[in-house]
Amino acid sequence: MEIIKPRTLSGFMELLPSKQIRFEKMMEILRDTYASYGFAPLDTPVIEDAQILLAKGGGETEKQIYRFTKGDSDLALRFDLTVPLAKYVALHYNELAFPFRRFQISKVYRGERAQRGRFREFYQADIDIIGDGKLDILNEAEIPAIIYKVFRGFGLTRFQIHVNNRKILNGFYTMLGLSEKSGDIMRTVDKLDKIGPEKVKLILLEDCGLTENQAEEILRFIAIKGTNAEVLAALEGYAGRNETFDVGLGELKAVCSNLSAFGVPEANFAVDLTIARGLDYYTGTVYETTLLDHPEIGSVCSGGRYDNLAGYYIEKQLPGVGISIGLTRLFYVLDEQGLLNPELPSAPADALVLPMTADPGPSIALAEELRSGGIRVQLYGEQKKFKQKMAYANKLEVPFAVLLGEDEIAEGMCSVKNMKTGEQVKLTPADAAEYIKTSLDAGNCAVILEK
Amino acid sequence: MEIIKPRTLSGFMELLPSKQIRFEKMMEILRDTYASYGFAPLDTPVIEDAQILLAKGGGETEKQIYRFTKGDSDLALRFDLTVPLAKYVALHYNELAFPFRRFQISKVYRGERAQRGRFREFYQADIDIIGDGKLDILNEAEIPAIIYKVFRGFGLTRFQIHVNNRKILNGFYTMLGLSEKSGDIMRTVDKLDKIGPEKVKLILLEDCGLTENQAEEILRFIAIKGTNAEVLAALEGYAGRNETFDVGLGELKAVCSNLSAFGVPEANFAVDLTIARGLDYYTGTVYETTLLDHPEIGSVCSGGRYDNLAGYYIEKQLPGVGISIGLTRLFYVLDEQGLLNPELPSAPADALVLPMTADPGPSIALAEELRSGGIRVQLYGEQKKFKQKMAYANKLEVPFAVLLGEDEIAEGMCSVKNMKTGEQVKLTPADAAEYIKTSLDAGNCAVILEK
Repeated sequence: MEIIKPRTLSGFMELLPSKQIRFEKMMEILRDTYASYGFAPLDTPVIEDAQILLAKGGGETEKQIYRFTKGDSDLALRFDLTVPLAKYVALHYNELAFPFRRFQISKVYRGERAQRGRFREFYQADIDIIGDGKLDILNEAEIPAIIYKVFRGFGLTRFQIHVNNRKILNGFYTMLGLSEKSGDIMRTVDKLDKIGPEKVKLILLEDCGLTENQAEEILRFIAIKGTNAEVLAALEGYAGRNETFDVGLGELKAVCSNLSAFGVPEANFAVDLTIARGLDYYTGTVYETTLLDHPEIGSVCSGGRYDNLAGYYIEKQLPGVGISIGLTRLFYVLDEQGLLNPELPSAPADALVLPMTADPGPSIALAEELRSGGIRVQLYGEQKKFKQKMAYANKLEVPFAVLLGEDEIAEGMCSVKNMKTGEQVKLTPADAAEYIKTSLDAGNCAVILEK
Repeated sequence: MEIIKPRTLSGFMELLPSKQIRFEKMMEILRDTYASYGFAPLDTPVIEDAQILLAKGGGETEKQIYRFTKGDSDLALRFDLTVPLAKYVALHYNELAFPFRRFQISKVYRGERAQRGRFREFYQADIDIIGDGKLDILNEAEIPAIIYKVFRGFGLTRFQIHVNNRKILNGFYTMLGLSEKSGDIMRTVDKLDKIGPEKVKLILLEDCGLTENQAEEILRFIAIKGTNAEVLAALEGYAGRNETFDVGLGELKAVCSNLSAFGVPEANFAVDLTIARGLDYYTGTVYETTLLDHPEIGSVCSGGRYDNLAGYYIEKQLPGVGISIGLTRLFYVLDEQGLLNPELPSAPADALVLPMTADPGPSIALAEELRSGGIRVQLYGEQKKFKQKMAYANKLEVPFAVLLGEDEIAEGMCSVKNMKTGEQVKLTPADAAEYIKTSLDAGNCAVILEK
């Protein structure tokens, strides 16, 4: 038979088992945390009608999208989870209860140029809360509070959720007589971290056509730093001059105060006047999340408040707030930076049961008993020498091997070997389950720890 | 703005939240059960190089596959999880430990003609055990034992796993001098349930060119029925005449005996000489699973033993055994037949916290405390009348509403209302968590129950 050289497409992540097990653990943390805040899981198709996916049309999206025909159908693979959500909410508007809260952890597709750390197929882990006509500001604090829980669940502590409000920015630019240029200005200010204040000023003057005075005012504004209380106090100095600004400031204060009520420490969220999110779509609170020790990575989790989710599909005003974690990229970066804790179990089983007799019956029964005690057990049925069996256990990195020979069977016991220490103890099956469980629990608190 | 009518493509399942929650519960049962037997999760790309996916080529697959180009690349969407597994094992052969045990629960794509209960995008939930050169017969009992656990986890009891062995069939046909026709004969016999023995005989005589005597022998063979012990005893009557037959019979006896050791009751597995699986791929034990009260559905979970997983991609003999659940179709059928238990929670939250004061702070704290007690809690922040809040709770079908007004805050209590009975009790937050949890646990043992 002619052999075809196997390969996986570039830009598509495919992990070896020990890493996939950690990735799955992160997905489990996401599912459990999102569900604990009353979000319903959603699972939309990967393939949609291309006309519907591209309703908004234009730009980078259209170039990157995987689009093809099958029979008479013009099809495309989803490039994010927001457009399918808009379609879903519009399609099922009469069957949903609003606010509608959903999470979706699914793969999306973008045919970007392949480069290190960029993926063409990647997971997004999104939550959104959609209102019908109205949506309370409380939701805008809950979203980052959930993200805080998720990141702590990942074992991270050195991260910060940056919060701003587009109304504050729009109001401020209106004060300067620059309301029509606010989009261009935000996109320029967004580059502050990358290009520095000098270049930002240059672009504001030359490309955006601002006066020296206007540019100075903006630089002074975005230079406001300090604790959240200090920044809010500085913003009070601009209050009373523009209604939109005042509304935005009120919202930002409510978000900060409620974030504290949700138990998010000050160290993990910061009012940051420089973030705006590139998309025109956002209308109020906006979020970005950075790893404090790796600012070069940029935001690993972003989102915000929008006023109209599904205007392309339904004549209803559906405001919402949402956030998205680029999970595949986050995992890649954490792995690359050594932030995936190597001490945590990455084996497919907690224990490998090794039958030492010809009849596998007693070993099958033992394995079943350990499983009913909550242990993940692989039964090793191959006819190999003992040394080869242990080599297999070592290659899998299972923490325990459980040996069952004639002696153990006669005594109603089994021999439990700790593969790391080499220590071996003879126990009843029930005690063995307890012993393994206790030992695992001691070292099994989080999937990732920071260095 | 022009409105585009939203729609979801036909043949693509998209569920409302209450059903999606049950579907997710089934996926959780699958993940947990597969993991408890030491299977590692695998997640391969949806898109692969078309040449690689179609290495085996030909037939229905080629017609149904979603294939397209992007730039210079000839791409296709996976149509099953076996071909990607073969690619993965060949590609990572040197990095994997054998036997390699993996599960994958993922969507696959087949552009079949859309019809009721047929899907173009559907989940498969597969497990496979791959050996390097050899693989012990014990694995061939473990696979159906796991499926038994999964189906019981789904809340089903009236199902039966049918087991046969291709070597028995091949050996038997060789005894009749029909070894070269065994493929045609198996495909014909496979239709027994649908067309009956008369028509099977007719095809055997006219299309396969068998003699009257050969056809009679075959019909007598496949008519062997009874308990597993009776069928095995009847098979003993054919022993000693063909080596392949004898090997197959030995394997079938080992599988039956080990299945009992795994705790699978006789009622849930049956030796069935009529099943062969259409694919030439299988070489030993084969499985099909039927719902006893719905034989018209056919097999909902099938698989078997194969001798060469990845011959198209690597010059290694990699035998294996695996099984696949067509999860989307199974869910559709269970739902349609009313086998999804309507009494089980399908709400996105266990409790809805309703703040009755202007300051949401105390309600935020209460919701967090209930969550830390293991309850899924939605905080309702909208400014609505009490009646509207209760209508929302009813629409979501949350089992409990938790009210927090000035009185409760002053007393350090909260009011827990059972939405079904209307009963309302005032409790401390810790007691409320316990009360809700106990009540949920009482009715939350399985996701699906049979009528």
